Amino acid sequence: HRRGYPEAVYCEGKSVDQVRTIARAIRDGATLFTRATPEQAEAVRAELPGAFHDPEARLLAWPPEAPPAAGGLVVVVAAGTSDRPVAREAELTAGYLGRRTQLVVDVGVAGLHRLVARLELLREARAVVVVAGMDGALPGVVAGLIAVPVVAVPTSVGYGAAFGGIAALLTMLNACAPGVAVVNIDNGYGAGHLAAQIAAPVN
Amino acid sequence: HRRGYPEAVYCEGKSVDQVRTIARAIRDGATLFTRATPEQAEAVRAELPGAFHDPEARLLAWPPEAPPAAGGLVVVVAAGTSDRPVAREAELTAGYLGRRTQLVVDVGVAGLHRLVARLELLREARAVVVVAGMDGALPGVVAGLIAVPVVAVPTSVGYGAAFGGIAALLTMLNACAPGVAVVNIDNGYGAGHLAAQIAAPVN
Amino acid sequence: HRRGYPEAVYCEGKSVDQVRTIARAIRDGATLFTRATPEQAEAVRAELPGAFHDPEARLLAWPPEAPPAAGGLVVVVAAGTSDRPVAREAELTAGYLGRRTQLVVDVGVAGLHRLVARLELLREARAVVVVAGMDGALPGVVAGLIAVPVVAVPTSVGYGAAFGGIAALLTMLNACAPGVAVVNIDNGYGAGHLAAQIAAPVN
Amino acid sequence: HRRGYPEAVYCEGKSVDQVRTIARAIRDGATLFTRATPEQAEAVRAELPGAFHDPEARLLAWPPEAPPAAGGLVVVVAAGTSDRPVAREAELTAGYLGRRTQLVVDVGVAGLHRLVARLELLREARAVVVVAGMDGALPGVVAGLIAVPVVAVPTSVGYGAAFGGIAALLTMLNACAPGVAVVNIDNGYGAGHLAAQIAAPVN
Amino acid sequence: HRRGYPEAVYCEGKSVDQVRTIARAIRDGATLFTRATPEQAEAVRAELPGAFHDPEARLLAWPPEAPPAAGGLVVVVAAGTSDRPVAREAELTAGYLGRRTQLVVDVGVAGLHRLVARLELLREARAVVVVAGMDGALPGVVAGLIAVPVVAVPTSVGYGAAFGGIAALLTMLNACAPGVAVVNIDNGYGAGHLAAQIAAPVN
Amino acid sequence: HRRGYPEAVYCEGKSVDQVRTIARAIRDGATLFTRATPEQAEAVRAELPGAFHDPEARLLAWPPEAPPAAGGLVVVVAAGTSDRPVAREAELTAGYLGRRTQLVVDVGVAGLHRLVARLELLREARAVVVVAGMDGALPGVVAGLIAVPVVAVPTSVGYGAAFGGIAALLTMLNACAPGVAVVNIDNGYGAGHLAAQIAAPVN
Amino acid sequence: HRRGYPEAVYCEGKSVDQVRTIARAIRDGATLFTRATPEQAEAVRAELPGAFHDPEARLLAWPPEAPPAAGGLVVVVAAGTSDRPVAREAELTAGYLGRRTQLVVDVGVAGLHRLVARLELLREARAVVVVAGMDGALPGVVAGLIAVPVVAVPTSVGYGAAFGGIAALLTMLNACAPGVAVVNIDNGYGAGHLAAQIAAPVN
Amino acid sequence: HRRGYPEAVYCEGKSVDQVRTIARAIRDGATLFTRATPEQAEAVRAELPGAFHDPEARLLAWPPEAPPAAGGLVVVVAAGTSDRPVAREAELTAGYLGRRTQLVVDVGVAGLHRLVARLELLREARAVVVVAGMDGALPGVVAGLIAVPVVAVPTSVGYGAAFGGIAALLTMLNACAPGVAVVNIDNGYGAGHLAAQIAAPVN
Ligand SMILES: Nc1ncnc2c1ncn2[C@@H]1O[C@H](COP(=O)(O)O)[C@@H](O)[C@H]1O
Ligand SMILES: Nc1ncnc2c1ncn2[C@@H]1O[C@H](COP(=O)(O)O)[C@@H](O)[C@H]1O
Ligand SMILES: Nc1ncnc2c1ncn2[C@@H]1O[C@H](COP(=O)(O)O)[C@@H](O)[C@H]1O
Ligand SMILES: Nc1ncnc2c1ncn2[C@@H]1O[C@H](COP(=O)(O)O)[C@@H](O)[C@H]1O
Ligand SMILES: [Mg+2]
Ligand SMILES: [Mg+2]
Ligand SMILES: [Mg+2]
Ligand SMILES: [Mg+2]
Ligand SMILES: [Mg+2]
Ligand SMILES: [Mg+2]
Ligand SMILES: [Mg+2]
Ligand SMILES: [Mg+2]
Repeated sequence: HRRGYPEAVYCEGKSVDQVRTIARAIRDGATLFTRATPEQAEAVRAELPGAFHDPEARLLAWPPEAPPAAGGLVVVVAAGTSDRPVAREAELTAGYLGRRTQLVVDVGVAGLHRLVARLELLREARAVVVVAGMDGALPGVVAGLIAVPVVAVPTSVGYGAAFGGIAALLTMLNACAPGVAVVNIDNGYGAGHLAAQIAAPVN
Repeated sequence: HRRGYPEAVYCEGKSVDQVRTIARAIRDGATLFTRATPEQAEAVRAELPGAFHDPEARLLAWPPEAPPAAGGLVVVVAAGTSDRPVAREAELTAGYLGRRTQLVVDVGVAGLHRLVARLELLREARAVVVVAGMDGALPGVVAGLIAVPVVAVPTSVGYGAAFGGIAALLTMLNACAPGVAVVNIDNGYGAGHLAAQIAAPVN
Repeated sequence: HRRGYPEAVYCEGKSVDQVRTIARAIRDGATLFTRATPEQAEAVRAELPGAFHDPEARLLAWPPEAPPAAGGLVVVVAAGTSDRPVAREAELTAGYLGRRTQLVVDVGVAGLHRLVARLELLREARAVVVVAGMDGALPGVVAGLIAVPVVAVPTSVGYGAAFGGIAALLTMLNACAPGVAVVNIDNGYGAGHLAAQIAAPVN
Repeated sequence: HRRGYPEAVYCEGKSVDQVRTIARAIRDGATLFTRATPEQAEAVRAELPGAFHDPEARLLAWPPEAPPAAGGLVVVVAAGTSDRPVAREAELTAGYLGRRTQLVVDVGVAGLHRLVARLELLREARAVVVVAGMDGALPGVVAGLIAVPVVAVPTSVGYGAAFGGIAALLTMLNACAPGVAVVNIDNGYGAGHLAAQIAAPVN
Repeated sequence: HRRGYPEAVYCEGKSVDQVRTIARAIRDGATLFTRATPEQAEAVRAELPGAFHDPEARLLAWPPEAPPAAGGLVVVVAAGTSDRPVAREAELTAGYLGRRTQLVVDVGVAGLHRLVARLELLREARAVVVVAGMDGALPGVVAGLIAVPVVAVPTSVGYGAAFGGIAALLTMLNACAPGVAVVNIDNGYGAGHLAAQIAAPVN
Repeated sequence: HRRGYPEAVYCEGKSVDQVRTIARAIRDGATLFTRATPEQAEAVRAELPGAFHDPEARLLAWPPEAPPAAGGLVVVVAAGTSDRPVAREAELTAGYLGRRTQLVVDVGVAGLHRLVARLELLREARAVVVVAGMDGALPGVVAGLIAVPVVAVPTSVGYGAAFGGIAALLTMLNACAPGVAVVNIDNGYGAGHLAAQIAAPVN
Repeated sequence: HRRGYPEAVYCEGKSVDQVRTIARAIRDGATLFTRATPEQAEAVRAELPGAFHDPEARLLAWPPEAPPAAGGLVVVVAAGTSDRPVAREAELTAGYLGRRTQLVVDVGVAGLHRLVARLELLREARAVVVVAGMDGALPGVVAGLIAVPVVAVPTSVGYGAAFGGIAALLTMLNACAPGVAVVNIDNGYGAGHLAAQIAAPVN
Repeated sequence: HRRGYPEAVYCEGKSVDQVRTIARAIRDGATLFTRATPEQAEAVRAELPGAFHDPEARLLAWPPEAPPAAGGLVVVVAAGTSDRPVAREAELTAGYLGRRTQLVVDVGVAGLHRLVARLELLREARAVVVVAGMDGALPGVVAGLIAVPVVAVPTSVGYGAAFGGIAALLTMLNACAPGVAVVNIDNGYGAGHLAAQIAAPVN
């Protein structure tokens, strides 16, 4: 029932040894390792030589080649530079689930002109992931401009009343424009997976 | 940029007169009136004779005929009887946005056999809306059984530590299976809209 | 130390008799009665015949004439129709503190074009009050477009994870653009007062 | 009034010296040391040579032999690998209170077939401890499948809206199936103790 | 898998008609109706003449006779008079699941002597349900005095920082004595069910 | 207006240099330094040779001799060993404000007999400080046993749903017995000060 | 152990009949009935003719005469008019526990001169109760001006981010001046009781 | 639309390299670097020799000279020593936006006389920034004493129920005096920017 999507191993809270053991065991299947520390990544690559690794996204992929792209385009938008790691995790996940992807960074609501400049690209997408911390206002603005679903990812970027992402999360749940699908704080993997499902080729 | 989806008028917090005025003004366009009280509904139907009205979902539609169905099937699942009004709001919204829909009620996680009995139907859907209050565990279980996106709607059904839907909301945001798109508490309209966008025909 | 600003009587939690007694006592000074019920308003007007009363804003003013306008323009923006009462309370307060005011309604972030259409007016202001519920994203967007302070008023409009205005409040405290001054939920009086102080004539 | 159950020393917030002093003092009674750091464990074992120590569960037992098993079987279920330490703490506690125990790991609700495969064992138990983080949905599902009490232990495993175990805690308090007894977040000791009391031999 | 325990129909959020329909349908099985309004109760008794009804506990039982008592004694303790309705719901539930029960009222921690006077009875029980609002301190004190499980039910009794039962709930989750099983706020039904399961005859 | 009570310097959030500068400046007045790190303590003692220092309470006093005792007795009760540092801070503060004091440790509600054994001492006091973490139930129980005020200090001792002292704080605010004065979490200094004021000699 | 203080019957959550029964039973002892509705008050006065009743404070006292005043003066300060009912409950309670009392209203922190004008009276007290809603800043300011304990009572007066008294409660717990004893939100009875204990004659 | 105010680079969450790259790129424009670590500051000064750096405020400014002062005076008030870093960030920001500024430290509400001693200076300001942690009561008191806007900055200074600045934030949002503009916890930059906008010369 998973259409051949790769398995995911969530590395947080696992020891390097546990991750190594898992890596050894899955050599024959497609797998994503998410939230890997450098040490965990090294252990995976010792077991699976040539595995893909993106340190910023903290993600590894095995086998290193993504499946051939099919379905619609997934555009991933990050409000600010600090949201990049989560955005990259989403983009890579969607790519390894078989979608074409494109990443757009630094288009926060405090400077709308930068967003408007990317409208054409946004309207080519079958699903748009929008990653934002602090006030989390960007997904609602984007959803008002396009007709396809927006997958909204609050991040823990911010301080004080940002409450580690709660402010952004609430903003997104209350977005005035319809068509906003919210996932957990910092959950780039979940967002990429959901976007890939939305943009999947229809059989 | 809305693909011709109907406008929505959110009636809560509007006076009967304000709703009447809006109804008069939109006679030529497709519109959904959501969260309408009986008095507001009567005012709409006085202005728009023959308008569709579902009192349980508190929804009116104008014109009364849904557009011809296109795209994939949207299945709406309600965990318990008390979740029905929200589920119906989602189902009708998806229908008036042009999707085929099917409603399944009373398949909570405390009795898994009832859920398993509907698996075949669930696997025909292009998007599944799952509506649940109290522990809100159902969407995560459903997402583990199917390959398409689950739109999860927490409801305010419950008491005590259900906190008016917060418990269910948090459960859904933390669902262990990927592919869960969360919307606001009791937001049947938003869920139906999102599901309709996911299941939209690909141009 | 108040520059002759009128006193304010907060009517919520006072009996009709208490309000009447106060009205009788202040006949010789300038006073605003805020959050007045219809019964309280009637009592005030029985004591102070001719007093100004705006039922939507639930505000009374005595004497009924505002002082001659001085200082800069205060523009008050309401995101949606349901935010109007709070916006009006702000506008009237600023007016009775001696400012020129202008009200703009229904320019939410889900339809940016409506906001952009009012940019010229916004840029004439010395202070802009922005009133918004649900996601509360509008003040941050406005602050990114103008050079003067934005007084942000979260409203209790919304449901579920709007939490009676908390979501909007947090959004405003975390606005990405600088220049956003936040006041309490539904506090139109405070916002109008603050805007009038900002736009006060410089001596 | 304690039926001879061992005393428990909660080591968190005690210095190594304080723990050593306690260890020396209790040489003649049955005692569990919970949440012990490696240094605290070393100090205990210096005073009580041969004491049982499980580093994963952070638990020490003195004397090292559990009492002869009596009463019913206690099955401990952990949803994921990261829940193991808490599950082991529960299992060992029940064992040192005199029950037969069995541990089952990695049977989360996202893959129901793994749970169903263990149904026979679950139905042999007199009490089942279910340990789960993130959405915390597992105890409610298990309770729907068996007739004896489920002791539900939320864990702090997860991120973002998991809120250090609050999400799982609320899910368990709102479980739709009756028969769920909730204890504090990460409280494996309390869960094991409660399960041992439930499964105690009836005199 | 339910050992022949009666079904439960949770009446809150159901219309009188829905409850009536259910009552008609279950004539041949054992059923508890919980949280019934007087109108719902009347409808049930019209369909099921002679059904047992306790208005204080808002509970109806069909058939009116409890099964013959088996297993151990369930003692239900209420801290104050206002906790009585929840305590009665627990007691009746345990009785209709086949246990002997006893109710003790007004033994709060502010007057320990009243509690100590009932120690003998408490030590005869196989499970003790303790119902308390405000500070919720009673279950922890009782658990320190007896060897069998305490099922702790926080109630919404109190004001201010009682937060509708949250204060009591947290107290119970943090009880210093082991052996405390917590259920949802005001959940007398769940507590009675759990106690009945704990005190069930061992096969 | 301070009856000659010593000044207090709260060291948390001050650099060692800032603390040293203050110590040098106050040589001629009575001062307490609270929450001092070992480095801050060393700096104080370099400037004020012979100053009193209690590392457990993290408190320094200058001059090192407490004033002659006057007024009533202050008894300080700590529920558990981990509550000792806060209890000592309270005890020392009361002593340096001129009261006789006595410390009682390890008398939690889970073992009431230990508390009852100290009743005579408690009833000699003019004010009793009760320090407790986790469920925070002890102050309410003590208040039920004595006629003078109980100063209740919640501590951050505990885990999970203890929420860093919030659970204990709420319990104390909701204590069923009257006569409980609550201070901030871990605020031993404030508790000792308040108790000294209550037990002050009447002029 | 209560020095002959009257018993208190908390009427909220009790039926008129329950209150009547209690009134009949306590005819020979001193009793306060708090939080009584008009109907409950009438029932009490039917049973106890001549009982004292203050409708604003919702308090009844039996016998109607307070004991002869002894000990120190208790001053009760209310920040605003809406805080009066709670302040009166505190004042009457202290009076019926045998203290001299004085009430001061409308001295909020926004107009410090009114507070300063009452300093002489405040400095005559043996205990000062300060009742305040909204920002709850008054108790800390008063504590900075006097040497005796301040009993701080947060009220639920306010709106929005006042959160039913939580904002005021937190302010009081964090008061910068020492000597602030906090009680539950709206708990005038508890504050009056505590103040009476503090100002009790020393035996 | 920014009147030539400098850009701000928020350094938290950026690597030293990212900050260095930005510094190199903005050589020709006016820029503030906020929340810079010592390493980030060094990187900026390597790229922009002679740049202004205040380690306490963690702020760098380029070019190092502030623009010539214009508009009204901005007074920045810090309640305690620990609030100094945030106060300095506000003061420097206002200065680099072109305002005259003055800093006043250590004038908390527990010692009103120190505040009153500075009234003359406060009344010269066109805007006053008030920085306070713990109870956050100072801005409301100041607002009651002056006629111009108070920009209130809650800080994370405090412990226990200060909740990292939430208590102070709520106090400020509920300030009884009108004219209080609240910004995010610890947001000295935002406060200084807002004050500079309020005190800007009127064109
Ligand atoms: N039941 C609903 N829940 C949430 N949002 C809704 C609902 N119905 C309508 N809306 C949204 O509210 C907007 C209409 O608001 P209004 O202009 O106030 O009628 C629409 O654009 C919808 O996106
Ligand atoms: N008072 C109650 N509190 C909590 N849960 C209840 C209560 N009464 C019944 N239930 C549960 O709710 C389920 C019935 O819900 P429903 O199908 O909506 O009638 C039963 O299986 C019980 O587990
Ligand atoms: N207004 C009040 N607020 C808080 N506690 C109260 C109040 N009035 C009475 N009490 C307490 O409640 C107890 C009486 O509760 P009850 O037995 O239910 O009448 C008394 O012992 C008082 O300590
Ligand atoms: N200390 C600060 N606190 C809050 N916001 C800030 C701070 N410093 C800069 N900003 C805002 O953050 C934006 C710069 O963010 P960035 O592009 O990530 O450097 C600026 O436009 C400011 O509005
Ligand atoms: Mg859209
Ligand atoms: Mg799936
Ligand atoms: Mg701007
Ligand atoms: Mg079961
Ligand atoms: Mg026990
Ligand atoms: Mg007492
Ligand atoms: Mg004082
Ligand atoms: Mg002012």
